[in-house]
Amino acid sequence: MNRGMVSVPMKLNHVVEAQQFNREMLAEIFQASRAMETVAKTGGVAGYQNRIMATLFYEPSTRTRFSFEAAMHRLGGRVITTENAAEFSSVSKGETLEDTIRILNGYADLIVIRHFEVGAAQRAAAVSRVPVINAGDGAGQHPTQALLDLYTIEKEIGKIDGLNIAMVGDLAQGRTVRSLAYLLGKFKEIKIHFVAPALLRMKEDILVYLRERGVQYDEETDLNAVLPNVDVVYQTRVQKERFGDRIQDYEKCRGLYILDQSSLDRMRPDAIVMHPLPRVDEIAMEVDRDPRAAYFRQAQNGLYVRMALLTMVLTSSN
Amino acid sequence: MNRGMVSVPMKLNHVVEAQQFNREMLAEIFQASRAMETVAKTGGVAGYQNRIMATLFYEPSTRTRFSFEAAMHRLGGRVITTENAAEFSSVSKGETLEDTIRILNGYADLIVIRHFEVGAAQRAAAVSRVPVINAGDGAGQHPTQALLDLYTIEKEIGKIDGLNIAMVGDLAQGRTVRSLAYLLGKFKEIKIHFVAPALLRMKEDILVYLRERGVQYDEETDLNAVLPNVDVVYQTRVQKERFGDRIQDYEKCRGLYILDQSSLDRMRPDAIVMHPLPRVDEIAMEVDRDPRAAYFRQAQNGLYVRMALLTMVLTSSN
Amino acid sequence: MNRGMVSVPMKLNHVVEAQQFNREMLAEIFQASRAMETVAKTGGVAGYQNRIMATLFYEPSTRTRFSFEAAMHRLGGRVITTENAAEFSSVSKGETLEDTIRILNGYADLIVIRHFEVGAAQRAAAVSRVPVINAGDGAGQHPTQALLDLYTIEKEIGKIDGLNIAMVGDLAQGRTVRSLAYLLGKFKEIKIHFVAPALLRMKEDILVYLRERGVQYDEETDLNAVLPNVDVVYQTRVQKERFGDRIQDYEKCRGLYILDQSSLDRMRPDAIVMHPLPRVDEIAMEVDRDPRAAYFRQAQNGLYVRMALLTMVLTSSN
Repeated sequence: MNRGMVSVPMKLNHVVEAQQFNREMLAEIFQASRAMETVAKTGGVAGYQNRIMATLFYEPSTRTRFSFEAAMHRLGGRVITTENAAEFSSVSKGETLEDTIRILNGYADLIVIRHFEVGAAQRAAAVSRVPVINAGDGAGQHPTQALLDLYTIEKEIGKIDGLNIAMVGDLAQGRTVRSLAYLLGKFKEIKIHFVAPALLRMKEDILVYLRERGVQYDEETDLNAVLPNVDVVYQTRVQKERFGDRIQDYEKCRGLYILDQSSLDRMRPDAIVMHPLPRVDEIAMEVDRDPRAAYFRQAQNGLYVRMALLTMVLTSSN
Repeated sequence: MNRGMVSVPMKLNHVVEAQQFNREMLAEIFQASRAMETVAKTGGVAGYQNRIMATLFYEPSTRTRFSFEAAMHRLGGRVITTENAAEFSSVSKGETLEDTIRILNGYADLIVIRHFEVGAAQRAAAVSRVPVINAGDGAGQHPTQALLDLYTIEKEIGKIDGLNIAMVGDLAQGRTVRSLAYLLGKFKEIKIHFVAPALLRMKEDILVYLRERGVQYDEETDLNAVLPNVDVVYQTRVQKERFGDRIQDYEKCRGLYILDQSSLDRMRPDAIVMHPLPRVDEIAMEVDRDPRAAYFRQAQNGLYVRMALLTMVLTSSN
Repeated sequence: MNRGMVSVPMKLNHVVEAQQFNREMLAEIFQASRAMETVAKTGGVAGYQNRIMATLFYEPSTRTRFSFEAAMHRLGGRVITTENAAEFSSVSKGETLEDTIRILNGYADLIVIRHFEVGAAQRAAAVSRVPVINAGDGAGQHPTQALLDLYTIEKEIGKIDGLNIAMVGDLAQGRTVRSLAYLLGKFKEIKIHFVAPALLRMKEDILVYLRERGVQYDEETDLNAVLPNVDVVYQTRVQKERFGDRIQDYEKCRGLYILDQSSLDRMRPDAIVMHPLPRVDEIAMEVDRDPRAAYFRQAQNGLYVRMALLTMVLTSSN
């Protein structure tokens, strides 16, 4: 990949958390992602046909796994994969994650890991001779999702500085909105409207961070009041699986904020609707037909961003 | 693939059900399948090295999955795969099949789907921008099996018109015999002998269709009486898993029609034995040694027919 | 692969058990393995891009599976895979292993099988037209592990004849130490120290074999007494899963022989520590830092040895 004659390609060893990227790095990743939109269509890049990516998933996420694997294949590379490492691997015999990673180092040029424990990707990266990419570690990080979200905003809206965004739904437990809020803190004149019921409010650590960065934000409960003002509505699913036994709390929270045609009618014509997917019913099917529905394009952008990241870490590890 | 200078390649967008094919289309698929027998040996066709097939299996079928994946690899293409989509995918979080397909459209050039619900492949095809191939939807369709069955008959017997065939065993619940009977209805002077116990008789919808098409058929209970007259004995497994609690019914039905050496002795020297596999004990092992045992060649033909279908849908989607 | 102008490449049809290899064959495999260390780095060998390996695992072993699949990919080949054949395949419908293999013969150029039943690989090889490699059959054989162990010894120590080795831990149930002892019986002036508690002693069949071959061995319970004298300490995990209900026996046995810094202090500077992995706590983490810790290099050697075996069986099957 030619990134210009005088540029020095970014040194990217591991992708562990959204916080590791500054604005300059984000700009370089997005430039590479744009280039990947062409590569994905024409297919293959010289130098990848002998590279092996291992997808090591300790909890299932077919969609994320397929996105990474398609990215590696679109580059011309190869994949070895497990989507059930927790049950199947030597873990059940008492092997540590660190030993598993050291052994995989002998087989693969790159490891994409998804794990149920916060910090697992960091532990993997600490011992790995080959690049490690975090594809989600429990309630912790899912940095490639945050990157593709931000890439989608830039691509669809044309800018990030000055953005006016509503984040809606499960802000307390939603990994994606937390990471996105964090990344937005690196940009200028951002306005964030956190729209959530009291039980699912954005947690204080992110609010403190935003205040320190001088980001304007407010907390709302009325979605309709916010809709006319924003560039982006970032809708999220209320994640039943994170409520555990508290079914009543779950039932109270879901269904509060459904995006439908009447929501679209309130939105600006150049605004977009995003969603990390999967959705249940928090975006009505009728919204899909509106060109402002950006969530399937957002998923597609995941391919380009991951292709870009794969080229960057594999170049660094040469 | 060169299909002749003046021919216009068949437009084939999705493969959803056996009924979608007329005689002309079948002839074109079989011609392409014959060409694939060479390609499978020499390996690879230009233009597939950057194409990605997603195998999205909501219920396991390692054999069918391997057949499709080998077909894509023999063409030179790439595969991303899950054999446990029901448990693992976003389905468990409430995502619709339609959303899953729309997301996969961003990653793959072709989707092979197996699902436990009748009509799932049709629903997938309805929203997909890339070709969808049905690899079995519950008690519904399994069109590539029907195609490979018919291809095997043409290849082994040298013709389809005028065929005299016995279909044996579980005709009530057997997806393959239903589809094959349907396709045979498009040919001339076909004679079908349905050999089954009363509980497992071919259902009326197919019989009505055959009468409308002028296909000769009869219903028998004595397999030995039929054997000397037929070109093809199509044996099936009595599918225990479809009987549910009715174990007694299952026990009554299985074991009624076992093909063994004495059956072979009754058959014509140029007749063949087919079976969709897996078999349990309805074909004795001793039959394997007879050259008329065509069932493993039949499984092999699945590779060629699927290679042909992959090239056709991928050509159409260019 | 060029193995010299006058040499006739070894005819290797199936890899079923460690016993099938004589010294000459081992030497050829190791020579090919050394060549593969270069191939693995530069990537790909002409002639493999259209070859398909099927990994048919009836019990999970992600590590062994990844090692074989990486080997096939490093050669430039292709892989179709299942890691849960027991639950998913037609086996649950009553299909025999032999039928599964016959069907796979139509799809793949090579089958790597792991099975829970002793003798399964032999049964598979008996009916297969394409090469079969045993990746472990229950308490039976795991011949590629034995080969990579021996390759590691030759590579690290520089010789096998004259070797002085301690085998430590679960010698009664450890498949790897049994196979390694067997292979060492083909070399000269070998000394083996079996270090195990009474419950886990090496079984008599191997001891008889070693006596017949004139191999010197003793049985010890004091690891520290042995450490100063050996070239290799081959440590093993006490396999909890093979004790069943006998938890008390397991608890008595584990923890008896922990290798740590004090063990290293007793060992010769040119000795090495091996382990088939996964480890639990029988080698302390502090040992990893010592250059004599050879177990991760040993795992890596599995890649080269498997690449060599794949080239040999695929060449034979042409």
